[in-house]
Amino acid sequence: MITSGDHMNWKDNLIKIAPYVAGEQPDKRDFIKLNANENPYPPAPGVIKAIEDFRGADLKKYPDANARPLMKAIAEDLGVDADNVFVGNGSDDVLALSFRAFFNSDKPIVFPDITYSFYPVWCEMLGIPYRTLPVGEDFNINAGDYNCENGGVVIANPNAPTGIGRDLSFMREILDANPGSVVISDEAYVDFGGVSALPLLREYDNLIVIRTFSKSRSMAGMRIGFAVGGDTLISALRAAKDSYNSYPLDSVAIAAGCASVADRAYFESTLKKVMATRDRLTAELRAMGFEVPDSSTNFLFAHHKSRKAADIYDFLKSRDIYVRHFRKPERISDHLRITIGTDEETDRLTAALHEYLG
Amino acid sequence: MITSGDHMNWKDNLIKIAPYVAGEQPDKRDFIKLNANENPYPPAPGVIKAIEDFRGADLKKYPDANARPLMKAIAEDLGVDADNVFVGNGSDDVLALSFRAFFNSDKPIVFPDITYSFYPVWCEMLGIPYRTLPVGEDFNINAGDYNCENGGVVIANPNAPTGIGRDLSFMREILDANPGSVVISDEAYVDFGGVSALPLLREYDNLIVIRTFSKSRSMAGMRIGFAVGGDTLISALRAAKDSYNSYPLDSVAIAAGCASVADRAYFESTLKKVMATRDRLTAELRAMGFEVPDSSTNFLFAHHKSRKAADIYDFLKSRDIYVRHFRKPERISDHLRITIGTDEETDRLTAALHEYLG
Repeated sequence: MITSGDHMNWKDNLIKIAPYVAGEQPDKRDFIKLNANENPYPPAPGVIKAIEDFRGADLKKYPDANARPLMKAIAEDLGVDADNVFVGNGSDDVLALSFRAFFNSDKPIVFPDITYSFYPVWCEMLGIPYRTLPVGEDFNINAGDYNCENGGVVIANPNAPTGIGRDLSFMREILDANPGSVVISDEAYVDFGGVSALPLLREYDNLIVIRTFSKSRSMAGMRIGFAVGGDTLISALRAAKDSYNSYPLDSVAIAAGCASVADRAYFESTLKKVMATRDRLTAELRAMGFEVPDSSTNFLFAHHKSRKAADIYDFLKSRDIYVRHFRKPERISDHLRITIGTDEETDRLTAALHEYLG
Repeated sequence: MITSGDHMNWKDNLIKIAPYVAGEQPDKRDFIKLNANENPYPPAPGVIKAIEDFRGADLKKYPDANARPLMKAIAEDLGVDADNVFVGNGSDDVLALSFRAFFNSDKPIVFPDITYSFYPVWCEMLGIPYRTLPVGEDFNINAGDYNCENGGVVIANPNAPTGIGRDLSFMREILDANPGSVVISDEAYVDFGGVSALPLLREYDNLIVIRTFSKSRSMAGMRIGFAVGGDTLISALRAAKDSYNSYPLDSVAIAAGCASVADRAYFESTLKKVMATRDRLTAELRAMGFEVPDSSTNFLFAHHKSRKAADIYDFLKSRDIYVRHFRKPERISDHLRITIGTDEETDRLTAALHEYLG
């Protein structure tokens, strides 16, 4: 029998993680949203048509468990085998499953102190020990630091929120120092001018490349991410997926994803527009007294020489322009992360900044 | 420095779970698929229209992280607060997150030996100790068995693959015996004539009810599941979600889910059709010498008095009719699980069975 003194102990067994506080979603219209690294342009026309044309009656059946049509489309696009592609519910899902699938060591996994903020969250969620390695004063990751004992390596390249992209020799140095660890190359932003580690997959079977349809393919609302890697890693990823959720991608997303991949010309033209706007904004911000590293992404990481990031953030917000200000870690608390919008949005941003800076 | 002797040890850190072997998906047309408990009828016309009308351009933005429009629609439909509803990527996602959020005890969680086969998989995935309690000879769950020390309780009601539904006094007996544990009522099939534990939520704050749009709403292809529970449990579930994947439901699924909830008349008419066909098939199977417990689901659990389940399965397959035969556990290895199809599919099934049984 259970005594009454025990009667509340189910609360002791609840997950011990502080509730997440979501980013700012203004409850009004007509604001400029440059705080989530979303693409300002719509997805390819074929994506919109694929959704319109989707046979809703087919929803009564389960989707393909591995999103095979999309696996094949991505594989063909990248020139790899379909069996070397794993598709998941956004790259957050693919990354979390990768942490679960690859990092079962007592040694800490390593990643930069300034990088995607979800890495430590997954480590805590999954009980994976981790250690962060400080980026340099210029926010560059020092590849040499990764020649250390570890249970795995995670590198966002280009890195976030710095926007800094590194070349193949950088990834090669990390891979050469880590033949005993799985190395994740998180390439969420690589299409905007970064250098992918994909060509290294033939040489390093402990490398896995993870990407998303959210940014460069304008499909954040559709939740599609994928991994490319050798048979051993992709098999482990499938085992982790099959132990969690049989059908992570719905049938409409599979159809829409295939349509996106099918239109390479639209994809490339959108990238070009975003990169052109980015390069113009970089120059304008620098002329206004901002320090901005060259970006290989669809956002800029900006620090003003004489004005506080928090104050600029507040001023822009008062003008209905939302950028991202990270209050921590302290190293970046005086920086802003500004998503590249349309040219018109960018003009309104620079006008507001001119107004503020006088 | 890392010595060459270490160079393959990344494989030692991969997840230790045998790759899952997917269920049979015949690679041909014109077969009758009664092996996945899918609904034979399409989703509500409003669902099909919501997808056609979806503004594909909006996909460039992230979805609402908590699928709030769908939370609200479900809450209104069930007469609860939106804050007491959690929406996820199919009920598998909601169940797995629940195991993660609620079962952090050293004591084993308990569930029946014959039930949804994913429960032990999640326990192994998440390192949760578990113990199965045998169902009776008649495949009924004995509520009294759950008056035992445990770290949590999971009851599928109606249960699968038996199809047996139990009443409120059954759930109440389990809840009264377990004030110290979270009790999950997994109600994937409840709409087909089962009795939901929802009315007990006001009395038991350690109860959580989990459901899906896959079966009764004909939306298996869309991946929508949800939980209803008290503030404490729903908060823990959100914390687990936010530690794993910020945006599990895409924008199209949110819109389509809302459209399904909006059409109660269609929903109820589909349920009635499935239940009428089920009751007819139950009688016909019994007349042919099958033992079939009364089902509160959209499937039947059938054992023939003189013919082997494996042989019946093979014969039906030769007639392009696919039902489910579980080779293990041994207790149910001479049973078939038969999904309720359309009346025409059911006629073809019974004709084939008459042919086989002579």
